[in-house]
Amino acid sequence: MTETASPDSRSADTGDARWDGLIVGVSLATLDGADGYGGIADAALGWRGGRLTYVGPRARLPGPEDALADELIEARGWITPGLVDCHTHVVFAGDRAREFEMRLRGESYEAIARAGGGILSTVRAVREADEDTLLAQSLPRAKALVADGVTTLEIKSGYGLDLASERRMLRVARRLGEALGITVRTTCLAAHALPPEFSDDADGYIDAVIEWLPVLHGEGLVDAVDAFCEGIGFSPDQTRRLFEAARALGLPVKLHADQLSDLGGAGLAAAFDGLSADHVEYTSEDSVRAMAAHGTVAVLLPGAFHVLRETRLPPLDAFRAHGVPMAVATDCNPGTAPLLSLRQAMQLSCTHFRLTPEEALRGATTHAARALGLDDRGVLRAGARADFVLWDIAHPAELGYWLGGRLCRGVFAGGRLIA
Amino acid sequence: MTETASPDSRSADTGDARWDGLIVGVSLATLDGADGYGGIADAALGWRGGRLTYVGPRARLPGPEDALADELIEARGWITPGLVDCHTHVVFAGDRAREFEMRLRGESYEAIARAGGGILSTVRAVREADEDTLLAQSLPRAKALVADGVTTLEIKSGYGLDLASERRMLRVARRLGEALGITVRTTCLAAHALPPEFSDDADGYIDAVIEWLPVLHGEGLVDAVDAFCEGIGFSPDQTRRLFEAARALGLPVKLHADQLSDLGGAGLAAAFDGLSADHVEYTSEDSVRAMAAHGTVAVLLPGAFHVLRETRLPPLDAFRAHGVPMAVATDCNPGTAPLLSLRQAMQLSCTHFRLTPEEALRGATTHAARALGLDDRGVLRAGARADFVLWDIAHPAELGYWLGGRLCRGVFAGGRLIA
Ligand SMILES: [Zn+2]
Ligand SMILES: [Zn+2]
Repeated sequence: MTETASPDSRSADTGDARWDGLIVGVSLATLDGADGYGGIADAALGWRGGRLTYVGPRARLPGPEDALADELIEARGWITPGLVDCHTHVVFAGDRAREFEMRLRGESYEAIARAGGGILSTVRAVREADEDTLLAQSLPRAKALVADGVTTLEIKSGYGLDLASERRMLRVARRLGEALGITVRTTCLAAHALPPEFSDDADGYIDAVIEWLPVLHGEGLVDAVDAFCEGIGFSPDQTRRLFEAARALGLPVKLHADQLSDLGGAGLAAAFDGLSADHVEYTSEDSVRAMAAHGTVAVLLPGAFHVLRETRLPPLDAFRAHGVPMAVATDCNPGTAPLLSLRQAMQLSCTHFRLTPEEALRGATTHAARALGLDDRGVLRAGARADFVLWDIAHPAELGYWLGGRLCRGVFAGGRLIA
Repeated sequence: MTETASPDSRSADTGDARWDGLIVGVSLATLDGADGYGGIADAALGWRGGRLTYVGPRARLPGPEDALADELIEARGWITPGLVDCHTHVVFAGDRAREFEMRLRGESYEAIARAGGGILSTVRAVREADEDTLLAQSLPRAKALVADGVTTLEIKSGYGLDLASERRMLRVARRLGEALGITVRTTCLAAHALPPEFSDDADGYIDAVIEWLPVLHGEGLVDAVDAFCEGIGFSPDQTRRLFEAARALGLPVKLHADQLSDLGGAGLAAAFDGLSADHVEYTSEDSVRAMAAHGTVAVLLPGAFHVLRETRLPPLDAFRAHGVPMAVATDCNPGTAPLLSLRQAMQLSCTHFRLTPEEALRGATTHAARALGLDDRGVLRAGARADFVLWDIAHPAELGYWLGGRLCRGVFAGGRLIA
């Protein structure tokens, strides 16, 4: 393990006040620096007012340990930045495990649809659920993600598909953040699927969504705008119209792009300075270049790849060659990605996409934060948010290695122990 | 959900004494009956002296709930039989997550071996570890398996490869059972790999193992005998000699068979009335017939299939057609199957092998018990061991559906809450 943390990341806070907390004895994977884990052995981590005040060797602390902070914790294991799950559909109602079972029994798509399966079954369940019901059903899933290290969570709407139901989903997303003490970033994905009342009129539905956007944004419910750009979703032209509306409101965009075919979605997202293009299995090298030029992050979603048994890999080498940051997310959703752990998405990204465990960890922290437009987290560095996780592991590669298990020993968000 | 439990499985215990415990309000997946979950809604489960006394509808309990048992628990969710992990290498020392990382960085087999990787690195670590160290390193893994529902655990030796070290592994396996309050079944897998001191003399090593067997068996450390029968392991002839020695001692056999090629291993295991043939990706239909004739269980190990990105599926339809029971196990080991949850192996079996969630659940309970020669568990039925798990789920298909999450709300072994 080598020390790659930059000197100033180790500097102590210059204020007089005692820190709120100080952990000593652990190893740190700071991820500070261009590559490597940024490992520091026999380290210390201090924080005050929700920000990190010290990230460095225990031996260089600026004073006696028991005088530096209100709370002193002696621990073992590794601390990483808090995980950032930058693509989820964790707010939904109903249950599609039985649909999963029907598929495995070989029942036809039609039979499943007749039995009430498919995305529209989730839309029905969400429309029928009041806000408290939706919160109660979504909370255990968000809690599970937090229990395995997530401190920042992106949550999309997209199962409401009418103004009132999309609003309800986004309100529940905000309430999850308050209930769990984590940062939630909301994304309006009203352009997720065509609701029954707009059948055969996708253009008309996009018009409606464009009318809803300023309303929802005015209520403080929208941090970004997303769409499902695909042959079976919305066209590049429809996506472009939506993105123009987002831009007019000053809202950043991201896109479900190139999952099943190359419609140039990732390039389109880049052209709008998109925060991210997500899925990206079929993304062309031209689009990769555009992403690099516009700072658009590639969000890899190995859970859906796994469950759908896809074989087409994202253009990983092109992303690496052109310097496009790769994030990893759960895509937690009831149809194609029943994932309740970002660490398990990291494992799947190592196995299916051959990411290194280090790439997977950066993908679930530093690069995921960037995919949400957040520059105050995703690394351990003095001044960054005090979002971090204590893991019971001997090496950070274990975070991409194990399936199952309870490796997480403590989750801190803004310096507060939340799980 | 239909009631498929047979009438007598619902009958109450006839003794006079109060039961030790009674859970009411849950749904049961009894797995009692040839197919279906054996579901019972609004059910009750009673036990006394480590055995189930009542498995049936709450409404048909033989008396007032609060008078029937010393402890009455009102709960929600589903109860299944305790999970049985019938193939693990959970006792080992050292750490191979960094080897996993080296492989993903594209480093060569030689470079990894030079850096001390591969199975022999685990052998070295196990030989160097004393019994308490080996126990301390293995305990968190076994605990993780139990925390996700395992109440019966098979543990193999096979990283010692000398008499003293194999003994130490098997002793640690027994101690894990005592420490965790679960049933542990030990398997002598000294014929796992060729130790350095026998290089180029596999026959000589098998001779040695055949001498160790009665010693270890005499110490009460061996419940079954196993070998790695493969081009890169031991030949069918060597395996046969070992199995004859096991038979002479009255010990049942099982076999790592047909994982990478078809050497007829599964048929060989069947010819010795083997409890199971494990891996079985390349097993021929002739071997499947032999397994059916001899009651040999097919143990599927989707974790290694996943991590090694194998593509050759076991002959699932042949197993189904010939009535060979299919079990599912973690194969928990540091090289090819870093799995700390049998539920996650169930998920992988659904995704990679297209097992239905019901097949996966029977594979991790009823059929796994059979793969260990145990006929007192793996179903919920009056008279069976009171090994059961309470899950926070709305349908048992969820056990094969979710990756990650904490679905397990209580693990009972012999009627005692252990996790
Ligand atoms: Zn998505
Ligand atoms: Zn094995």
